[in-house]
Amino acid sequence: MERKELSIATKRAVAAVRSLVIDMTNKANSGHPGMALDATPAMVALFRDHLVADPEHPAWENRDRFVLSSGHVSALLYSMLHVSGYALRMDDLKAFRQLGSLTPGHPEVGLTPGVDATSGPLGQGIAQAVGMAIAEEAVRASGKDRSTFFGHRTYCLCGDGCLQEGIGAEAIALAGHLRLSNLILLVDLNGSTLDGPTSDSNTENVRLRFLAEEWDVIDVKNGDSVDAMSRAIEKAKKNIASPTAILFHTTIGIGSKNAGSHKTHGSPLGEEDGAFAKASFGYNEPPFTVEEAVYDLFRETFAKRGKEAFSRYEQAKKDFAKNHADDARVFDDSFSRNLVPYLPSIRDFSGVSKEATRVSSGLFLERLHASMPFCIGGSADVAGSTKTTVKGSSVFTPENREGRDIHFGIREFAMACAVNGMALHGGLVPYCATFFVFSDYCKPALRMAAMEKIPSVFLFTHDSLAVGEDGATHEPIEQLAGLRAIPNLSVIRPADAKETEGAWRLALESKETPTAIILSRQNLPVLPSTSETKVSLGAYAVREEESPTIELLASGSEVSLALSAAEILHEKGIVARVLSVPSFDLLRRSLRRGETVFALPRENRFSLEMASTFGWAEFAAHPIGIDEYGLSGKDKEVLAHFGFTPEKVAYAIVSVLKEGK
Amino acid sequence: MERKELSIATKRAVAAVRSLVIDMTNKANSGHPGMALDATPAMVALFRDHLVADPEHPAWENRDRFVLSSGHVSALLYSMLHVSGYALRMDDLKAFRQLGSLTPGHPEVGLTPGVDATSGPLGQGIAQAVGMAIAEEAVRASGKDRSTFFGHRTYCLCGDGCLQEGIGAEAIALAGHLRLSNLILLVDLNGSTLDGPTSDSNTENVRLRFLAEEWDVIDVKNGDSVDAMSRAIEKAKKNIASPTAILFHTTIGIGSKNAGSHKTHGSPLGEEDGAFAKASFGYNEPPFTVEEAVYDLFRETFAKRGKEAFSRYEQAKKDFAKNHADDARVFDDSFSRNLVPYLPSIRDFSGVSKEATRVSSGLFLERLHASMPFCIGGSADVAGSTKTTVKGSSVFTPENREGRDIHFGIREFAMACAVNGMALHGGLVPYCATFFVFSDYCKPALRMAAMEKIPSVFLFTHDSLAVGEDGATHEPIEQLAGLRAIPNLSVIRPADAKETEGAWRLALESKETPTAIILSRQNLPVLPSTSETKVSLGAYAVREEESPTIELLASGSEVSLALSAAEILHEKGIVARVLSVPSFDLLRRSLRRGETVFALPRENRFSLEMASTFGWAEFAAHPIGIDEYGLSGKDKEVLAHFGFTPEKVAYAIVSVLKEGK
Repeated sequence: MERKELSIATKRAVAAVRSLVIDMTNKANSGHPGMALDATPAMVALFRDHLVADPEHPAWENRDRFVLSSGHVSALLYSMLHVSGYALRMDDLKAFRQLGSLTPGHPEVGLTPGVDATSGPLGQGIAQAVGMAIAEEAVRASGKDRSTFFGHRTYCLCGDGCLQEGIGAEAIALAGHLRLSNLILLVDLNGSTLDGPTSDSNTENVRLRFLAEEWDVIDVKNGDSVDAMSRAIEKAKKNIASPTAILFHTTIGIGSKNAGSHKTHGSPLGEEDGAFAKASFGYNEPPFTVEEAVYDLFRETFAKRGKEAFSRYEQAKKDFAKNHADDARVFDDSFSRNLVPYLPSIRDFSGVSKEATRVSSGLFLERLHASMPFCIGGSADVAGSTKTTVKGSSVFTPENREGRDIHFGIREFAMACAVNGMALHGGLVPYCATFFVFSDYCKPALRMAAMEKIPSVFLFTHDSLAVGEDGATHEPIEQLAGLRAIPNLSVIRPADAKETEGAWRLALESKETPTAIILSRQNLPVLPSTSETKVSLGAYAVREEESPTIELLASGSEVSLALSAAEILHEKGIVARVLSVPSFDLLRRSLRRGETVFALPRENRFSLEMASTFGWAEFAAHPIGIDEYGLSGKDKEVLAHFGFTPEKVAYAIVSVLKEGK
Repeated sequence: MERKELSIATKRAVAAVRSLVIDMTNKANSGHPGMALDATPAMVALFRDHLVADPEHPAWENRDRFVLSSGHVSALLYSMLHVSGYALRMDDLKAFRQLGSLTPGHPEVGLTPGVDATSGPLGQGIAQAVGMAIAEEAVRASGKDRSTFFGHRTYCLCGDGCLQEGIGAEAIALAGHLRLSNLILLVDLNGSTLDGPTSDSNTENVRLRFLAEEWDVIDVKNGDSVDAMSRAIEKAKKNIASPTAILFHTTIGIGSKNAGSHKTHGSPLGEEDGAFAKASFGYNEPPFTVEEAVYDLFRETFAKRGKEAFSRYEQAKKDFAKNHADDARVFDDSFSRNLVPYLPSIRDFSGVSKEATRVSSGLFLERLHASMPFCIGGSADVAGSTKTTVKGSSVFTPENREGRDIHFGIREFAMACAVNGMALHGGLVPYCATFFVFSDYCKPALRMAAMEKIPSVFLFTHDSLAVGEDGATHEPIEQLAGLRAIPNLSVIRPADAKETEGAWRLALESKETPTAIILSRQNLPVLPSTSETKVSLGAYAVREEESPTIELLASGSEVSLALSAAEILHEKGIVARVLSVPSFDLLRRSLRRGETVFALPRENRFSLEMASTFGWAEFAAHPIGIDEYGLSGKDKEVLAHFGFTPEKVAYAIVSVLKEGK
């Protein structure tokens, strides 16, 4: 296109996209036009001149990633995807926010072509983008000469909300520290949040804040100018030393009668103001109309650039494969999640009499790192305690992108979101770890992983009262119940070293479900009757009895406790069949399949767990647990205080049986 | 004391406190000496010269507050409290981290005299301190001339960990925005975290970061100097325009052979290194020995100052009461939580046929603000949606400390922590609000409130799939189960306007339990059979039947749905007794009291909730709910899709009954 032609088409494109936003939100009578309208020029600049992606191959592994962190302005993203050639038809836009559409209220990865991450819960988009940027560096560095064909950028658009959220701050600090120069954050400063002017709740110096976190900052005073935005992005792309934040100033709800006011944030403009706004853009087409010139613009810029890049990539990858056949296979396997060839052989447990399951996990990780060059992870400053410092692996730093040990800092939430971003990016098997009580800090990321249907692995150690001296603040009580209630999250609490091996293998087998593995701080006996493979049943007998009086269900460290209690009960003439129940979700799956798991009806079942009893009633009429906060003290004393000794458990069961009959 | 004498005693005090830290952690064979050792001079400076508190009246409402945000260095706080005259004996220090002691692993408010907040989960201490600073301003401003007797500072000590956490960032931004000049944050930059040098995971410019958030910053290069620290605090106290961060540089584990290394962070020094360190301090006393000169120092400085201040306060308050008898009474009532005189009269619900419970809550708040001058709260930028913009109340700003509407910004976690800080401070009835799905973002603060036994009120609106168009990311599923599992948190989900009134009143009656009230976005019919007062039962019949076939339990918006389903079932010859179950915790309390709640055994009970079924098995054998994520669409269509119509619910029940028999 000629320069003048380009300029005219661009102006029409901005107007067309804005009009689509107005039409979509009006038709749905729902949605957030405000920032969608003001950020349109930024998006047009990005798509027209910079973003490298092929709308015909939306899953291309080397595409630039784009995350709309302010997911509530989804109408803008959908409109952009539509005009730039993705398989998102006008009818899809018309069905905005309607049941069964490809255009839900907030972007959902896996549903809509071109959407790289689910977003909406504010701040998480930035953190997922940071994970993608880490992933790009890690994938590129993890084989010799991979940079001959692989390398891309991650863009993220956010507003004030994402910046105010703590998760935004954590992610920004992490990205700055790791010097992720492949990350460009477009920060829309429209001066408004849902309740009013941003200044009502935030008066920070955004520029200074990014500088403090070691970012480069580019200010764009006129964020309404496509060309100004494009120049800023061009400049940001040249920065090879740090991530770049482009702070662009806009007017929320531009074009509307309420332009500049938070009133345009959360409600459609309506027919009248919509028409007013469209007129101000000089866009007089009927609703849901895009001129051919607008499609042409993106066809000749974005789509053409993407198609060519895709072809070049295909060729470059072929060339790479000629000289690096093995690594090319590893690369493909990593992206297609063909993990079987990279699994370590099953450990020989003979001679292991006891081991903390966090140690068992650490030993598995060591073997996994050795056999699977694309597994990567780390912890939130508790690597020594969570046993995620892997012998032979180096730290991922700006100077050492081959490192597969990530120091996330004391940022549990950003850590978990970054792992999600890495999983979304593909090419890696990412995991992270912290103390179980701090799963609370990253819970929203676990939900996000479950919604995104990605196989992130979350390790949580120090899983009970047995934490001991650290006391109530550090002793998980309700966390198991909380995680078990999350749909599509597999929660596994292994009873010993063998079950830990099984839990990790299930996590790696999973393709659409994240896994939380809950591990002990203290040593646990390796039990003769446990099994790596039976973990997948969710529950199985570890003490079989022909004619049991009761069944005793337990998980994790309480399985050995249950077995000891069963011995005592036996002496009292009570025959207890004991089940290890590593996972509620896997147990339910077994029951749905019609497996025979239980020998007795629910009324005769007891459960035993050093955690809230909440949720156990589904499987056992008589739950034994702890429905209050823990105490600081020597672990054994704390456990005894709350009744978690074989004698006290046996006594509690006998009491119930006496009362009941 | 003479200057020279003071200097000698101070040096001995630092050595004595450090030696106590070494002895405590050694004896417990557990704990975190590193920062405790390096931050001792800062604490000695604070206690010797600045902190205004009377160890004989640790609950004095006008004391300066002190929050140890890095709760893992509790040994330092306990040692300081001991030497400065609090009722914490040497035997208590010897029992550090032991079962039943006053000196648990992390500080616990309510347990140990002189401990103003529970801390340990990093970052929350800062945010609670921010809440206390808000409270001080609000209490002082909420009556004429209160500043004649009331006014104090809040100090907070933190390390790198609290700064890295997102909650730290949120709290710092909020404090800067609100210009809380009564807040002084002592930031210990010892350059080390648990896993290694801070620079491994964080390289931000801390100074710049605070400046960006509108704080004043004072650097203390030699954080090992009591006098340098004291001068810095003195300077900070003079700042009346903004909060102040004192960044003081120290050497972690100072005195130890491993001084400067993270090795001193999480493990006791042991006998040998402990003796080495004590020798380096020139402290050759036997373990757990404090020279009389050290006690004398704090007796003549800290305790004397506090005692005098307390006396002055008592007199000033008496003088105040002479001229402001009414407000003096209000002041005392607010601190003793004597709320009954300030409760609004019960609303007349006649003529109200339907109302969203978020609206009912907003209307209650309006009457509450009118009758209770010390209730204060706000939302995380969703005041319009959560109905927390109270007519007639103004916004709490630096210029308007009388405002009782707080704009917390898009900072759910800091908001909830700040409310906890306000509740801990006393003199206020604080609440906050956000969308229910974002309870995930502040869950750790709910746990903290429950552990602290404070009556914070958390409002969560938009409580189900009925959110509709915003889709899966914004539709709570597992949140109800997650909150219900938290010990000592009362979770109430009212069925209509009347139950909302009841829920609020229970929250205000509570003294040691925080309350989460879960509210609907959509209109709900005001039911003839619901009751404000029966909410306290946790469950009660809203459709009574003499000979029911089944019982149907529901909460919130599903109570009216259950009643409609019961009508349909009736036509089919199935007699359903319907119960409103606003609260599991209150229901359990009723059952423990022996109340007759149910008419049929569990096997004949169904539950109905547009949420995860997790946890319902405790009360009903047949839970109807949703154990997957929601969808974006018109609310009615989404509900119908997942089976939440009277017809589909009735059908589901009939199906179970057919199968079962």
